[in-house]
Amino acid sequence: MSSLPLLDGLLHGSATVQRRAMAKAITLLESTRADHRAQADELLTALLPHTGRAFRLGISGVPGVGKSTFIEALGLFLIGQGLRVAVLAVDPSSTVSGGSILGDKTRMEHLSVHPSAYIRPSPSSGTLGGVAEKTREAMLVCEAAGYDVVIVETVGVGQSETSVSGMTDMFVLMQLPNAGDDLQAIKKGVMELADLVVINKADIDVNAATRAQAQIMSSLRLLGLHGNPEHAHHDEALWHPQVIQLSALLGQGVDRFWGSVSEFRRLQTANGRLNSRRQNQAQAWMWERIDAGLKQAFRAHPQVQHLLPQFTQDVALGRLPASTAARQLLSASRLGS
Amino acid sequence: MSSLPLLDGLLHGSATVQRRAMAKAITLLESTRADHRAQADELLTALLPHTGRAFRLGISGVPGVGKSTFIEALGLFLIGQGLRVAVLAVDPSSTVSGGSILGDKTRMEHLSVHPSAYIRPSPSSGTLGGVAEKTREAMLVCEAAGYDVVIVETVGVGQSETSVSGMTDMFVLMQLPNAGDDLQAIKKGVMELADLVVINKADIDVNAATRAQAQIMSSLRLLGLHGNPEHAHHDEALWHPQVIQLSALLGQGVDRFWGSVSEFRRLQTANGRLNSRRQNQAQAWMWERIDAGLKQAFRAHPQVQHLLPQFTQDVALGRLPASTAARQLLSASRLGS
Repeated sequence: MSSLPLLDGLLHGSATVQRRAMAKAITLLESTRADHRAQADELLTALLPHTGRAFRLGISGVPGVGKSTFIEALGLFLIGQGLRVAVLAVDPSSTVSGGSILGDKTRMEHLSVHPSAYIRPSPSSGTLGGVAEKTREAMLVCEAAGYDVVIVETVGVGQSETSVSGMTDMFVLMQLPNAGDDLQAIKKGVMELADLVVINKADIDVNAATRAQAQIMSSLRLLGLHGNPEHAHHDEALWHPQVIQLSALLGQGVDRFWGSVSEFRRLQTANGRLNSRRQNQAQAWMWERIDAGLKQAFRAHPQVQHLLPQFTQDVALGRLPASTAARQLLSASRLGS
Repeated sequence: MSSLPLLDGLLHGSATVQRRAMAKAITLLESTRADHRAQADELLTALLPHTGRAFRLGISGVPGVGKSTFIEALGLFLIGQGLRVAVLAVDPSSTVSGGSILGDKTRMEHLSVHPSAYIRPSPSSGTLGGVAEKTREAMLVCEAAGYDVVIVETVGVGQSETSVSGMTDMFVLMQLPNAGDDLQAIKKGVMELADLVVINKADIDVNAATRAQAQIMSSLRLLGLHGNPEHAHHDEALWHPQVIQLSALLGQGVDRFWGSVSEFRRLQTANGRLNSRRQNQAQAWMWERIDAGLKQAFRAHPQVQHLLPQFTQDVALGRLPASTAARQLLSASRLGS
């Protein structure tokens, strides 16, 4: 079966036909069957020229920070501006639990039923790399279908923030107004990825939120991520990560949030960084998949499967040098040099 | 030529013979010639049973923190206790500059001429992974030659701290008493690796050093790396990273530093973590070399070399999906699935 009727439905279908084509396309892309994969590659290549016009927004934060509430408020705000919004998710824990707490439609009850919104939960099989790849591909489907903003949400688990930052134009970190919350983000290397830091639940304790904002701005400055405001006029063409407070629950600050996002998008487009970021992301993605494929082939090799248990034990017990073991396994697999 | 006479010189030679055997063995291990590599593997396997009795101490810090001065003071202190000390280095920048600023004997003028000390600069060719592998292997040579303490120093560049932390029993982070120095270390993920944080140059400004110490301890607590002192008695068998001040230049605090190291070693040996850390390190090292070997073989494959430039460009320009490109390159190389 050719995947081209699917493409036609994605690009030109009526609302109902298009929605059905999106679901079918994403299911095809998520399939692990070899014949499906060939069709999926054909579809991806065909839809690629129709992608790239959406703004790709990554949103991350620990459980309880209020991501779903915020994304629902933001999504409805954007729809009010005449935009179409897709919400995807990268949840590495879904591969363990089998279900996804992210992109859960029941947690975005108004957005999920709106005809201008498309919500898809995290793929729930494979490694983080595999889950991220499926989400990247689903993003391309949404873009071909003409969605204006694609939001990719993730939870603060493992390396998922790096994955989402690596597939989006802008990466937003949501924080709670708690002491030390910023240190955790710095430690995990997530603060460094953030183009914008949002302190949510500012309505609960305005003083705590303001203290957290000052603390995070000071950390960003010490880390060299935030420009000195006195010298800001020296590099107006460059974006410096901002920190803003809002209350997703009360819908307060969503307009200002979108103002910051729009300003970021304008700057990054004008100075060429949006384009170079996307080029680098695509190349990094290619190499990530190559690495994963090489490792998978290595582990699946009969000689490796035969030797690995003993070698692993000998290396751990100091009976075989690790580099010697690596060379012998590579040689046995005939894959490496 | 067999490598076994070398082993005999390492294990049983007179001081002069042993020193010459060490230099020869390390040169053999650093060689890239295929026939040398076979001898090197033979030598490594033969000396492995004679390793593991030394304490492996990693020391890291940014340029200017005073690493050489501190290692000279520490080395002479340890020799005064009747111990033999080896100093190795991992300097990824040496592969660019061609020369190494680390392990530079002229910067440790008393230690470098002492018969109980052995100093070897960083290997200066290849990737960080390659440099780290050579240093790991040189460490085994020093251990077989009966050195009691092997110090591996590195500079705060790129991922070199992770490499050194991954080959040592204890990882020490040297800091200057500067505001924000700890945030940089947290950002880079180095604070998380530290078993002990040393604030050097405490003699210059005692107040600044004390402020830095309090700041770092507070950060460690917020990161969950440092136990709450009130509950310390609940887990006496576990080590919590400590923060100490010293002045390497004046030789002040070196004895207290070694007291902390000895306490760490005692605890980690008693609770089994020293052993499990070494086992995990050896296995991680094996996989790191396998990954590097797979990637090297992939890049060297004629079909990959033929296709890669065009594919890389097509992926960057959005003409070819990254995952499709990866699959086609893997298939062309016949290495991956």
